[in-house]
Amino acid sequence: MRSKKIRRPKAKVGAPPGTLIHVGERKADSTQIRLIDYDENRVHETTLEKIAPALNFRDRASVTWLNIDGIHDIRIIEEIGRHFDVHSLVQEDILNTDHRPKLEEHVDFLFMVLKTLRADAAGEVHTEQVSIVLGKGFVLSFQEAQGDIFDKVRERIRSDKGRIRKMGPDYLAYALIDSIVDNYYLVLEEIGDRIEVLEEELLTRPSPNTAQKIHSFKREMILMRKAIWPLREVVGSLLRQEPLVREETRLYLRDLYDHTIQVIDTVESYRDIIAGLLDLYLTSLSNRMNEVMKVLTIIATIFIPLTFLAGVYGMNFHYMPELEWRWAYPAILAIMAALGVGMLVAFKRKGWF
Amino acid sequence: MRSKKIRRPKAKVGAPPGTLIHVGERKADSTQIRLIDYDENRVHETTLEKIAPALNFRDRASVTWLNIDGIHDIRIIEEIGRHFDVHSLVQEDILNTDHRPKLEEHVDFLFMVLKTLRADAAGEVHTEQVSIVLGKGFVLSFQEAQGDIFDKVRERIRSDKGRIRKMGPDYLAYALIDSIVDNYYLVLEEIGDRIEVLEEELLTRPSPNTAQKIHSFKREMILMRKAIWPLREVVGSLLRQEPLVREETRLYLRDLYDHTIQVIDTVESYRDIIAGLLDLYLTSLSNRMNEVMKVLTIIATIFIPLTFLAGVYGMNFHYMPELEWRWAYPAILAIMAALGVGMLVAFKRKGWF
Amino acid sequence: MRSKKIRRPKAKVGAPPGTLIHVGERKADSTQIRLIDYDENRVHETTLEKIAPALNFRDRASVTWLNIDGIHDIRIIEEIGRHFDVHSLVQEDILNTDHRPKLEEHVDFLFMVLKTLRADAAGEVHTEQVSIVLGKGFVLSFQEAQGDIFDKVRERIRSDKGRIRKMGPDYLAYALIDSIVDNYYLVLEEIGDRIEVLEEELLTRPSPNTAQKIHSFKREMILMRKAIWPLREVVGSLLRQEPLVREETRLYLRDLYDHTIQVIDTVESYRDIIAGLLDLYLTSLSNRMNEVMKVLTIIATIFIPLTFLAGVYGMNFHYMPELEWRWAYPAILAIMAALGVGMLVAFKRKGWF
Amino acid sequence: MRSKKIRRPKAKVGAPPGTLIHVGERKADSTQIRLIDYDENRVHETTLEKIAPALNFRDRASVTWLNIDGIHDIRIIEEIGRHFDVHSLVQEDILNTDHRPKLEEHVDFLFMVLKTLRADAAGEVHTEQVSIVLGKGFVLSFQEAQGDIFDKVRERIRSDKGRIRKMGPDYLAYALIDSIVDNYYLVLEEIGDRIEVLEEELLTRPSPNTAQKIHSFKREMILMRKAIWPLREVVGSLLRQEPLVREETRLYLRDLYDHTIQVIDTVESYRDIIAGLLDLYLTSLSNRMNEVMKVLTIIATIFIPLTFLAGVYGMNFHYMPELEWRWAYPAILAIMAALGVGMLVAFKRKGWF
Amino acid sequence: MRSKKIRRPKAKVGAPPGTLIHVGERKADSTQIRLIDYDENRVHETTLEKIAPALNFRDRASVTWLNIDGIHDIRIIEEIGRHFDVHSLVQEDILNTDHRPKLEEHVDFLFMVLKTLRADAAGEVHTEQVSIVLGKGFVLSFQEAQGDIFDKVRERIRSDKGRIRKMGPDYLAYALIDSIVDNYYLVLEEIGDRIEVLEEELLTRPSPNTAQKIHSFKREMILMRKAIWPLREVVGSLLRQEPLVREETRLYLRDLYDHTIQVIDTVESYRDIIAGLLDLYLTSLSNRMNEVMKVLTIIATIFIPLTFLAGVYGMNFHYMPELEWRWAYPAILAIMAALGVGMLVAFKRKGWF
Repeated sequence: MRSKKIRRPKAKVGAPPGTLIHVGERKADSTQIRLIDYDENRVHETTLEKIAPALNFRDRASVTWLNIDGIHDIRIIEEIGRHFDVHSLVQEDILNTDHRPKLEEHVDFLFMVLKTLRADAAGEVHTEQVSIVLGKGFVLSFQEAQGDIFDKVRERIRSDKGRIRKMGPDYLAYALIDSIVDNYYLVLEEIGDRIEVLEEELLTRPSPNTAQKIHSFKREMILMRKAIWPLREVVGSLLRQEPLVREETRLYLRDLYDHTIQVIDTVESYRDIIAGLLDLYLTSLSNRMNEVMKVLTIIATIFIPLTFLAGVYGMNFHYMPELEWRWAYPAILAIMAALGVGMLVAFKRKGWF
Repeated sequence: MRSKKIRRPKAKVGAPPGTLIHVGERKADSTQIRLIDYDENRVHETTLEKIAPALNFRDRASVTWLNIDGIHDIRIIEEIGRHFDVHSLVQEDILNTDHRPKLEEHVDFLFMVLKTLRADAAGEVHTEQVSIVLGKGFVLSFQEAQGDIFDKVRERIRSDKGRIRKMGPDYLAYALIDSIVDNYYLVLEEIGDRIEVLEEELLTRPSPNTAQKIHSFKREMILMRKAIWPLREVVGSLLRQEPLVREETRLYLRDLYDHTIQVIDTVESYRDIIAGLLDLYLTSLSNRMNEVMKVLTIIATIFIPLTFLAGVYGMNFHYMPELEWRWAYPAILAIMAALGVGMLVAFKRKGWF
Repeated sequence: MRSKKIRRPKAKVGAPPGTLIHVGERKADSTQIRLIDYDENRVHETTLEKIAPALNFRDRASVTWLNIDGIHDIRIIEEIGRHFDVHSLVQEDILNTDHRPKLEEHVDFLFMVLKTLRADAAGEVHTEQVSIVLGKGFVLSFQEAQGDIFDKVRERIRSDKGRIRKMGPDYLAYALIDSIVDNYYLVLEEIGDRIEVLEEELLTRPSPNTAQKIHSFKREMILMRKAIWPLREVVGSLLRQEPLVREETRLYLRDLYDHTIQVIDTVESYRDIIAGLLDLYLTSLSNRMNEVMKVLTIIATIFIPLTFLAGVYGMNFHYMPELEWRWAYPAILAIMAALGVGMLVAFKRKGWF
Repeated sequence: MRSKKIRRPKAKVGAPPGTLIHVGERKADSTQIRLIDYDENRVHETTLEKIAPALNFRDRASVTWLNIDGIHDIRIIEEIGRHFDVHSLVQEDILNTDHRPKLEEHVDFLFMVLKTLRADAAGEVHTEQVSIVLGKGFVLSFQEAQGDIFDKVRERIRSDKGRIRKMGPDYLAYALIDSIVDNYYLVLEEIGDRIEVLEEELLTRPSPNTAQKIHSFKREMILMRKAIWPLREVVGSLLRQEPLVREETRLYLRDLYDHTIQVIDTVESYRDIIAGLLDLYLTSLSNRMNEVMKVLTIIATIFIPLTFLAGVYGMNFHYMPELEWRWAYPAILAIMAALGVGMLVAFKRKGWF
Repeated sequence: MRSKKIRRPKAKVGAPPGTLIHVGERKADSTQIRLIDYDENRVHETTLEKIAPALNFRDRASVTWLNIDGIHDIRIIEEIGRHFDVHSLVQEDILNTDHRPKLEEHVDFLFMVLKTLRADAAGEVHTEQVSIVLGKGFVLSFQEAQGDIFDKVRERIRSDKGRIRKMGPDYLAYALIDSIVDNYYLVLEEIGDRIEVLEEELLTRPSPNTAQKIHSFKREMILMRKAIWPLREVVGSLLRQEPLVREETRLYLRDLYDHTIQVIDTVESYRDIIAGLLDLYLTSLSNRMNEVMKVLTIIATIFIPLTFLAGVYGMNFHYMPELEWRWAYPAILAIMAALGVGMLVAFKRKGWF
């Protein structure tokens, strides 16, 4: 996860608000429009080329879910905006993938921006933006690229599992957000595993590389936090949205709210744990430095004085009476040995090894 | 206490809410259902195989306490849910042992999730989830495994000690939570003792191992905090639950609330103290490094110049007049001794030893 | 961005409030007064020498925008104050460029102080103060120097792009603030790029210089934060300003409010990231120190004992039987080699290289 | 101040609430009961053996102050509880000396737990618990041991100094709390003095011992904070206790509230200062390490190359033409001197000494 | 600024509240009482010996400002208290110079405690306490010593500059507080300058002394913060004091409130900057340590092996065939040169110099 820049392009700065410009990487080749219309008795599912046919479903009593994968095509967003009375500022927000999660109340609908997380093969976490519009009888969802995040919801609608077919569009919106939060669990679990691997590595074979890994974890946490924190507020205020959110759905939203707090809690705990890992790494660095220094000091402190002694008797003065003594050489060797052993004992006593 | 992952299993992600799946380690072999029904005059205690017989007690004026040890058996939870009108989302929460402590108000009952702590022989702290449902005339409690945490409450009911037999199910719920919080005191006391031992070790014989111990304490505190913090809110909002919680029980709950805050306070103090220990450890590392360096420097600084001097008079130049002087050798030895002593004095003055 | 002093000049201290003194650097040579008066059908744009002619436009139904570049000329500010009923304390605030962003409600108008950011060629960020007065039918804006920050707004008015010509002066004020916030995006994007370059540098070739760069980033963030944080409150309370801010503009302000929070979020993330960079730098310093120490220790630990051995056989004692042995020299060389290799192996085993 | 454990004894865990067990060290040999009964005209002071005689004073219009020193005697507490209608939970709290400061409102009385601080000869700070019950016409105070903390209040009552004899029991309670807070000032002043001594020591002759002193200061601050922080809330809510606290006493309580905040402020400042001391100590450690390393490096860097040179001319090759040159020896000495001086100059230029 | 002790003298502890004792250093030789009485048309200014004459002015319609320099004379404070109906607790607060800034509402007057800052020649910051009593028609101000801080206000009253003569005593109180806050700007500017000098010093020639300077800055900030923070609340609640503070003064107080926040902001920024300086200093220490170690390692690593080689050929073995070879000496010199250069190249490649 690179330091995500705020990508509001220079062309956009100063442009009148409501100007539709796609901001962000283009992640899908084409835009796919999928419509599911259902009530307790019946499911109708089609893939559309244009928005117009969707209008037939809009005002029926059934729940209409229009999912758009790929948001780079401005005309489609505009067309939807026109047909479903979505304000141009909201259209702009759908196109701009750099928003933080939020909920906006409009007269006829609620607009939510959410972030999905995805860990790639290398373990790097990427975010994608999902926008959801909850209106009377319909839900619009916009994804940056084709994803499988809503597949299980579709499955439940088709197979009439759970109560989804019996409930209204507010429950569908809940189900969509819930599947996003469920996804956070997966990503967090993966990160939790990687933190444990890192911790193991730190305790057994720390390397300079470890510091960089800790650093990149920290960055991921900073950015995940930015993506997840505001969600609490989003779900919290969704709870209070009468009449679009009905009493019977509220219980589920409260449950979702608990999950959101749990996710935030976990991110915070991970931050604390990662900070602890850095401390541990620095401590282990200091410990090893200490060990290295001790080895050097022991060796140098023992041999430097002995070398000096040898140097003294290597001097070439003519008058050095000791040189001629018979036992001088063995005596000096004995003295040297005594000195060396004495020092070793002294270091041992200091607890240096 | 390993980094507790959020264990929402992959199978569960995207499943409709209210799907009953047991999440967590299976800690008990079988599920044990214990029923205690009591009023001021009488106690009835049985172990049940099925839930159905419990229904006879449900609507009596007496207090019915149904305790379930072992929550992996989904059918039992479902059966209880059906008989006691417990919503499927609540059943799901009972089965999922990864919840944070919370209190949920439902129309007819209160649902609480709590965490018990247990320190094993090695001093590692484990958490277990306890769910409590407080309804009109009954209390349901769910434990992950058979534990002795509620034994003293049972004892008090049987022996009619204290006022428990005179009070309603709200007082029973209070007594259960109180025994959980009492248990925190034990665990915290044990941790307090271990922190003191560690501190002692740090001041007398620090080892690289110490850093890892401090680190693991830090992690335990992070996770204990996560388990205990939300309890304050749980007890706090329990205080406001009319009519299920009666005026006469409120005094006891306020007392419990004080205990909860005291426990949180202690956890926070421990965190501060542990942070201080890490600082102290790093400081002691630096101090020892300093000492090692001083020894090396003193030895090297004294003997390196002397060795150089000896080296000079070990050179083999033909013309080196000093070599022939009569007193050159004693003189050079004297100079060397003077140099060495001079340096020692200089280091002494600098306060290096 | 040098440590911005509070430049309230000594002359000013103790002066009666409302005394008009220009506080700050004089950034413009002359003061330029530009007037744009527009409604849905018509735009009138002139450059004025004096304020008086502007009065003709003041009470018309059209929107009058008076923009003053260069605020060092006290008389002009005074004249405007007189003609537009702007309190002397407000005039004083316009002249004092050391204010933090704020919104003041007055009986007839709103007064806002904002900060623009500008990154110069060397990447240093400078702030400039913009004051906006929003009255009934008119907007006054004051800039420290001639800038191009409002050019796009002018362009939109002239070319009737977007809805600006159809809306009132509150929308114009919104457009001005929006263009300031848009500008923050540019500056933040630039800083984000520079942080990435720094991070790259840190990972590949850290230098003592890096620390200073991190330090100067930190300072910039401290000061940017000071400039941007209060903006949230300004826009937030602007939302509640009836009747000067009309319902139809409120939607745009809410959008602006989101942008403001996003900008603040980004500044906070950058602060965290920069703090992380410093940690990483210090860790890499320790790592390199460790590496240097290991090289020294390996070399010294291998050669110091060998040199001692050589020294022993360089002594000049008459009676040193080994010296005469035939194989002594090759033997001692072999011993030395064995010692050296042995030590290398030992270090290898310790994982030192 | 050792890490204060939560001493809820194992016997107590799980016991019914309201069970009277003395928790804490037994600090007094016997329990002393002192009664002072006074009104504007008269003071009656006795030492009691039993509680019963106190009942005569209870319902008179005069103010009755019953002070109990030593709380290990459960029967006395029980007796008081019975006579003065004090709930068994409150009795339990009086006996348990591990409470944090708090105020409890009961129907007929207020119950307060407070902590006194006492610095012993070695400068270690100890806490003691004082419980105060403020009822209609009487004040009960409980101390762990006989102390002189309330002596001045007694003195004022006897000698009719100040207004104490003219006011009600609420003023007496205020006077008691005030004398506890006054005592904090003494302890904080003493700690302030010790911090200054430590700071002086740190700047002039830091020793490894200093780190431990800083650490023990930190711990004391953690525990003092725990004792003092909640006091703010206690006094704050005491202010709102009508009708037990009368209007005329409120002014004095507000004054007391200010003092409490000032004490908390000081504790916080001390924490900051102590944190600063640790930074300063670590910095001074690094500085001294740097100095030590420089000395070593200067000496080694100068003499190691010179020693090498001497070694070269100490080699025994037969063909070494320089050895025979007439001026070789003085020349080599000159070269060595030049090298040494050159290096010294280089280090000087680097600013190493 | 030494660690300011809480100087509540031991004599005072336990004394009845309202006992008048002067707490603090005696900063003035004598007490000076200055009276200014003014309305729109007239100014009367005298220096008084006693308080009595001031009473003539008290109940007039004009504004009466009584300024007392030097508060050690308890009788004067008492006299004022008697004549102006100032409660004895307030008198006590005036005499005790260790209060934190606060505002107290009394029935007939407002009592404020404020702190002035003064930087002495050595750059150390000292605080002094100013107490202000704002009553109906009069303002009393108490300073520890004669100061020039209110001179400009006097000047404005005399010369009828600004609107001060047209406004009531609330505006006078505002003017006094404003001149105190203006003074903060001066002190902060000076500190800002000193921080820049320190930063410059840190980047060009850091010395162990620098750490102590940073430390003393930190302490000053801790204590300044303690003095300035509560001011926000004081001015904030002054804004709400009807009827003593009139509507027309409120605008000025809001302006003052902005200034207060700006001052607090600046103190906070300085704290952050100073914390950054310490980091920078420690980093520069580590950098220099690294540099020192590299020099040592390069020199030692090059010459230690060479010295060993020389040592080998300095051995006195009889049988050392190389010694007799013709080109052995030049060859060994060449080998040594090659070794040395090779190592230098290796270090160069590692980027060590």
